[in-house]
Amino acid sequence: MQGNYRAVWLNNDFFDECLEVVDQRILPFEYHTQYLTTTEEVARAIKNMTVSGAGVIKSIALFGVYITALEVEGNFEKLQKKVLLIKEAIPSVLNFSCKIDIMVDHLRGSSDVIGEAKRYSIEFSDNEVQESQKIAQHGCKIIEDILKNSGKTKINILTHSSVGWLSMLDDGSALAPIYEAKRRGIDVHVWVDETRPLNEGASLSAWELAQDGIEYTIISDGTSGYLMQKGEIDMVIVGADSVNANGVINTTGTYLKALAANDNGIPFYVTTPTSTFDFATKDISIELRSEDEAHYMKGVDENKTIRKVRIIPENSHVVYYAFDITPQRLITGFITNKGVCEADFDRIREKFNKQ
Amino acid sequence: MQGNYRAVWLNNDFFDECLEVVDQRILPFEYHTQYLTTTEEVARAIKNMTVSGAGVIKSIALFGVYITALEVEGNFEKLQKKVLLIKEAIPSVLNFSCKIDIMVDHLRGSSDVIGEAKRYSIEFSDNEVQESQKIAQHGCKIIEDILKNSGKTKINILTHSSVGWLSMLDDGSALAPIYEAKRRGIDVHVWVDETRPLNEGASLSAWELAQDGIEYTIISDGTSGYLMQKGEIDMVIVGADSVNANGVINTTGTYLKALAANDNGIPFYVTTPTSTFDFATKDISIELRSEDEAHYMKGVDENKTIRKVRIIPENSHVVYYAFDITPQRLITGFITNKGVCEADFDRIREKFNKQ
Repeated sequence: MQGNYRAVWLNNDFFDECLEVVDQRILPFEYHTQYLTTTEEVARAIKNMTVSGAGVIKSIALFGVYITALEVEGNFEKLQKKVLLIKEAIPSVLNFSCKIDIMVDHLRGSSDVIGEAKRYSIEFSDNEVQESQKIAQHGCKIIEDILKNSGKTKINILTHSSVGWLSMLDDGSALAPIYEAKRRGIDVHVWVDETRPLNEGASLSAWELAQDGIEYTIISDGTSGYLMQKGEIDMVIVGADSVNANGVINTTGTYLKALAANDNGIPFYVTTPTSTFDFATKDISIELRSEDEAHYMKGVDENKTIRKVRIIPENSHVVYYAFDITPQRLITGFITNKGVCEADFDRIREKFNKQ
Repeated sequence: MQGNYRAVWLNNDFFDECLEVVDQRILPFEYHTQYLTTTEEVARAIKNMTVSGAGVIKSIALFGVYITALEVEGNFEKLQKKVLLIKEAIPSVLNFSCKIDIMVDHLRGSSDVIGEAKRYSIEFSDNEVQESQKIAQHGCKIIEDILKNSGKTKINILTHSSVGWLSMLDDGSALAPIYEAKRRGIDVHVWVDETRPLNEGASLSAWELAQDGIEYTIISDGTSGYLMQKGEIDMVIVGADSVNANGVINTTGTYLKALAANDNGIPFYVTTPTSTFDFATKDISIELRSEDEAHYMKGVDENKTIRKVRIIPENSHVVYYAFDITPQRLITGFITNKGVCEADFDRIREKFNKQ
C-alpha cells in the first residue's frame, strides 16, 4: 500500500447504489466495511464516528445527499427536508452545512435530481483526492528542506489524531507529505500521538503507517514535550478540522503540541485544503462528545476478541471536548493544496478576498 | 474519608512483621492490599508499580531495609549486600538511593540492627506524614487567596498523575491542599488528568477524590489546554518526583500543562517536601518503562471482571518515558512543608546552603 486509498466509495453491487465506508471504530483490530443505504444510516455513521476525519465526513455528507436522492426517488421537496438529518450530524466546527445547502440549491429544478446528485458528489470527492495529492507534494518539499537544514539523514515527525487516508481521501492530511516523502526515498520516522480519548492516532494513523511500511512509534499524549526537549522531534504536522479567525480547530490536544513545539523552536505545520479557511467565523462552539467515549476503551483480549472495558471509577464525570483551538502565533505555516503559506491570517484573508 | 491515610504500613499479624501496601495496579476497580515479606518482594513491588508515587516509594524503600534486616536476622554484612536490590528498583530520578545508604550507614555497628531499622523507617514515615500535613496547610492558603482574588465562589483546580495519599502518605502531595480546602468548607472542583499511559489520574486520584466526596471531573490529557482557554481552570497543582537544576521532574505530561498554564496566565504550583530539592544534580536520566505498559489497558468488563486488552496495532513500537522536565520559568511557586516560595532556583539554593 502507498497511501492511495479512499475510506468511502459508491457500491453498485445492489439494485440501488449505496455508500460503502471503512468502519473506523473497530480498527486496528479488524478491517470491515459498512453499507450506508439510507439518509438515517449516513447521519448515524457520522454521529457515532463509524467514520471520522474532516475530509471523509465532508465526502460522506455529499454522497449522503445522493443516497437521499435515491431514497426519495428524485423528489426535490422530500430531499430538501430529509438532508437536514445529515446536516445536523456534522460537527459544528466543520462548518460544512453550507456546502450541503449549495448542493441542494444546485439540484433545485434539475430534471434529473438523482443523476445530478451523483455527478456532484463524485466530483467533490475527486476534487478532494486531487487536493490531498497537492498537499502531499507541497508538504514533502518542506520535509526535504527541514531535513537538509538539519544535516541529519533521517527526519522525525510528530503527528496528532487520525491523519491518513481514513480521515481524508487518498493521501490523507498530515500523513500526505509523509507518504510522499516515503515515495521519494526519504528516511522518515513518525511519532504517533495516541490521541485520547478515542485513540485515533494509536489505532487509525498507526494502522495506516503499518500498512505502508513507514517506521512509526506510538507515544502517549503527554510524551511529545519531553521528546522535543531531547531533540527527538524535527517537525510537527497536524491536520485541521477548520481554520477560522481564532485559529486552527483540530482534535483535542493539538494546542498543547503547538505550545511545546513553539517552546522548543520546532516547526509546526498544519495541512489543510484552502476550502477549510473561514476567516469570517469568530464564535465557534466546540461540541462536547458523549461521556461514554472516555469511560470505555476498546481493545482485544488474549483470544483477539474485541472487548470494551470501563477504565475509570464508576459514576465518574468526564468532560470530552472533541477539538481545541491553536492560535496563529503558534503555527509556522499552512501546507495547502495551493502551496505553503505563513500562518498570517490577515494576509491569507486578503489573498482570498482578491480571488 | 478525609484523605488521612497511609498506603503502606507494618503488619504484625505474622510471626515476623511484614509490609502491607495498597495494590495500586487494580484500583479503582478493586481495593486489595499485598504483603511484602522479603527484600525481593519489596523491590518487585516498586518495579512493577504495585506502589507508585515518590513519597510512598521512599517510605517503602526504607521499610524495605527493615524487612531485609528481619530476613538476614540482623546480620549487617548480609543486609548491606541485599538492600542493593531495593536501591536498584528505585526510579533514578527519585535520587533516593543515598537515603538508603545513610540508613545503612546508621545501622553499621548497631547492637540491635533489626530494632534500629524499624525505629528509623517508622520515624521517616511519620516525618513524611507531618510534611504532607504542612503542605496541606500552606497550599490551602494559596487556594484561598486565588479564590478571593477571582471573585468567584468556587475554585477549579487541575491536577496531573496520582497525587493523593496513595502516592504520598496521609494528605498526599497535590491533593493535600485540596483535602484541606474541603475541610475548611471551600467549594472546590478538581479537573483530573487521565495521565496516560498508566492512568494514575483517572484511576488513583479519581478514586481517592470519590472516597472523600470531593467533586471532580476526569479529562483526557489533551483537554486541559482548551479548558484553560475557556477560563475553566483557576490554578494547577502538581506533585514532583524530584526537583533538580533543570527543573521539576514529574509524571510525563506535566511540562505540557505548565506551558498551557503559562500561556493562559494561570498559576502553576508544585507541591513538594523540601527534601526532594537537589540542585546539585544536572544530568538526569529519565527511565524508559516497559512498552507493555502502553500496549495494554486494564478495565472492567460488563461483569465487573478486570480484563487486560491490547489497544494498539500488534507489533507497534511504543516509547514511554515515565517523567518529563518542567523548567523553573513555567512554575509560579513551590508549596513545601516549610512554606510557599517562588520557583527561583538560585534563591532556594542559597537558602539551603545557609541552613
